[in-house]
Amino acid sequence: MALIDELANLLGDNLLLDDEARHSRARDTWPRSEFDQWQGQLVLPVAVAVPSSTEQLAATVQLCRFHGVPMIPRGAGSGCVGGVLASSDSVVISTERLSGLRWLDPTDGLAAFGSGTMGIAAENRVREDGFTIGHWPQSIEVSSVGGWMATRASGQYSTAYGNIEDIVYSVEAVLPDGSIYQSRPTPRASAGPDLRELLLGSEGTLGVITEVTLSLRPLPEPGVRQAFHFDNMGAGIEAVRSVIVPGWRPPVVRLYDAVESRRHFRNHLPKGRCMAIFLHEGPPGHAALEGAAVAELCQEAGGEPADSGAVDHWFEHRNAVPTWTELFEQGLVADTIEVATGWGRLDQLYTAVIEAISAVPTVIAATAHTSHAYQSGANLYFTFAAQPSDPDQYQSVYDACWSAAMQAATDCGAGISHHHGIGRVRRPWLTDELGNAGVGVLRAVKSALDPQNLMNPGVLIPD
Amino acid sequence: MALIDELANLLGDNLLLDDEARHSRARDTWPRSEFDQWQGQLVLPVAVAVPSSTEQLAATVQLCRFHGVPMIPRGAGSGCVGGVLASSDSVVISTERLSGLRWLDPTDGLAAFGSGTMGIAAENRVREDGFTIGHWPQSIEVSSVGGWMATRASGQYSTAYGNIEDIVYSVEAVLPDGSIYQSRPTPRASAGPDLRELLLGSEGTLGVITEVTLSLRPLPEPGVRQAFHFDNMGAGIEAVRSVIVPGWRPPVVRLYDAVESRRHFRNHLPKGRCMAIFLHEGPPGHAALEGAAVAELCQEAGGEPADSGAVDHWFEHRNAVPTWTELFEQGLVADTIEVATGWGRLDQLYTAVIEAISAVPTVIAATAHTSHAYQSGANLYFTFAAQPSDPDQYQSVYDACWSAAMQAATDCGAGISHHHGIGRVRRPWLTDELGNAGVGVLRAVKSALDPQNLMNPGVLIPD
Repeated sequence: MALIDELANLLGDNLLLDDEARHSRARDTWPRSEFDQWQGQLVLPVAVAVPSSTEQLAATVQLCRFHGVPMIPRGAGSGCVGGVLASSDSVVISTERLSGLRWLDPTDGLAAFGSGTMGIAAENRVREDGFTIGHWPQSIEVSSVGGWMATRASGQYSTAYGNIEDIVYSVEAVLPDGSIYQSRPTPRASAGPDLRELLLGSEGTLGVITEVTLSLRPLPEPGVRQAFHFDNMGAGIEAVRSVIVPGWRPPVVRLYDAVESRRHFRNHLPKGRCMAIFLHEGPPGHAALEGAAVAELCQEAGGEPADSGAVDHWFEHRNAVPTWTELFEQGLVADTIEVATGWGRLDQLYTAVIEAISAVPTVIAATAHTSHAYQSGANLYFTFAAQPSDPDQYQSVYDACWSAAMQAATDCGAGISHHHGIGRVRRPWLTDELGNAGVGVLRAVKSALDPQNLMNPGVLIPD
Repeated sequence: MALIDELANLLGDNLLLDDEARHSRARDTWPRSEFDQWQGQLVLPVAVAVPSSTEQLAATVQLCRFHGVPMIPRGAGSGCVGGVLASSDSVVISTERLSGLRWLDPTDGLAAFGSGTMGIAAENRVREDGFTIGHWPQSIEVSSVGGWMATRASGQYSTAYGNIEDIVYSVEAVLPDGSIYQSRPTPRASAGPDLRELLLGSEGTLGVITEVTLSLRPLPEPGVRQAFHFDNMGAGIEAVRSVIVPGWRPPVVRLYDAVESRRHFRNHLPKGRCMAIFLHEGPPGHAALEGAAVAELCQEAGGEPADSGAVDHWFEHRNAVPTWTELFEQGLVADTIEVATGWGRLDQLYTAVIEAISAVPTVIAATAHTSHAYQSGANLYFTFAAQPSDPDQYQSVYDACWSAAMQAATDCGAGISHHHGIGRVRRPWLTDELGNAGVGVLRAVKSALDPQNLMNPGVLIPD
């Protein structure tokens, strides 16, 4: 194959052709493709390119484009919606060797990282200089900073510090034609549409992110942690709303339904209650003021204080999740589905999605929490598990749970994805989200930038 | 002309053909086109369409497109960079009859307005329900909510409440093909690139915004006002940085150079000093805490307290600006130029741009203030005035001042526009801002959505 020879000439040791390399980079952490792998049915790419510079990556894109070969951009593979999945004719372009700090400016509070830098490595590096990124997704140990941007990620501190789009200062990317785009490094611009936003959430379909510059904040003093439990989700939602609307912004605001509260905080609250946990931090005096105000608001809304050990417990365990394969081996198929809506419909959305998923045969659990709050609403993050009698049913049960949840969410007028993205799993509902005109815009942009549809085909944009 | 007959059939009284109507809507508030008008050289459009519904506006776009006639979308015409300027073969599409509140949801804190609603009318309307938009551009009395979005506007409270992109919840727009796009009303989404961002700052080149839904906040209690003066801009910038970096976010943070300080606050500070003014507001207790912290930080940075009457004076006069024509009649040509950069280069940028403009022959004043602060930097807002001996020199002097400022700003690595936009005046420098690849993306998006280049041709995107 001519392409392989040319890539080998270009990339040398940065072209991986062995089975192990192709196997370990063929997919992300989508349950369906992990299931395929568990079943021994994973499709492998032709090759894995691991360029070690932006220019090398750009040349890789140009070669693949010249040969008309599909490219699958890949960060660290922690995405869970099928945004990375090789076809047998594709080349995976992994950013793993675009790694590490490029520069850090302590005056402006900026740090530039190769897009393949792992999240936890980036956070640990800026802490050496007294900063934090303020972005802590549950995946921080297994995700890359480029992946954060490509999937439009949210972190656990988003309610105060924003989501990744609020933290990215500038970006470098290789576009589908092989040109290198570098956004202007400026704190804010009115210079046409913000082109960074085309890459945020593009899921590899509009280019490969090669470098991300993040706006940092000083590492704050240890904050105030507190927790309250409520009669039900509706009461808890109303309490959280009463905190957010007047302008309080605790970095961590999480409200769990009764089942999840028992799962996470069994020793810290009575059965049947819904736990809300808060972390307050900020400039001197702020955490104490906000903490006292939030305590008063939660108690006015019917909340009973829990011991703050509940929050400590959450912090200790917040990154721990089982693998899908561990669940498959226990006869379980499971996933998470996050959506978002305005305050007024949040409790209705909670009930509707729980009921819809619970009605799918063999489902044994459907639960939720909210973890990201905004002036006008919040997200809901559902988890489901089903126990089909036969592994052959795993995929149909999985699909049925997603369909039930998406239908209930769109019926409520909710947004179909808060922060995991579209990938393959939500693609059938993107038209519900964006409308025909919105999908038309997205398709037009895609065709204009990638007329051959070589950059991550099959992801995000409906056919 | 067949188009006029068809538009008359479609629009009835919503088609304006008289001279006065065409004259008053042929331009925005760009000094160069106001100069042309003063000279009696203003070019008029064929007609002014003032559709009274989204559907009527969409049909207007379809008719103009069918006839290949350029369309000039127009809000209230307060833009100052030449984003609205009719050609003799064009139809101005004004949003002025898409006006008023469509709905207000007090639970979610949302209000939807027709895009032609004047800013001050929208703000006054939501105040009736106890809310504020939190967006107060100097133009609030003469600008529309659709114009805020199309130009990616900033308001005087942006440091706490964000710019228009942070306040817009959802948008409806007529695209260049006449289809109607409605963004999903959700507090946050990871569902591909954020398509609202293509309209924010699009300056009428990618569609006509017809309705804007804004996320409101409760009207706060009266806040704390205070002011400090500093030895020079560098000292003042360092003080503001010391406030912002640890996380304080006063809604109003403004630092004026010595000349502007005398212009605005003559009775409140000694000659040669640079005034910084602050407004603190927020949930109960916040303004007092932040005010005390900021007072300490400013004094640590060498600031001397001024009487808070200085801030009161600013609030009373903040929307007052002379018209360009008043200045032309005094023999003056003037304009404002806002740019932005990181903290570390802000004082250098200040000096470089002031020196560059001052070196232009006949310039009599070049001054600046900063008025929008971010974690990693801030804007600078320059004002210049020149007094050429002959009105025939006005345009060349004006152009020379802009060239000098843009060259100095790009040499410093600054962003060329903080919030006024590109329009016609900054178009020659957009490639410096976005790079060749960025301009290529913008052109590709434009061609994909408006292949005939009928929607506000000549604006934003370099030829």
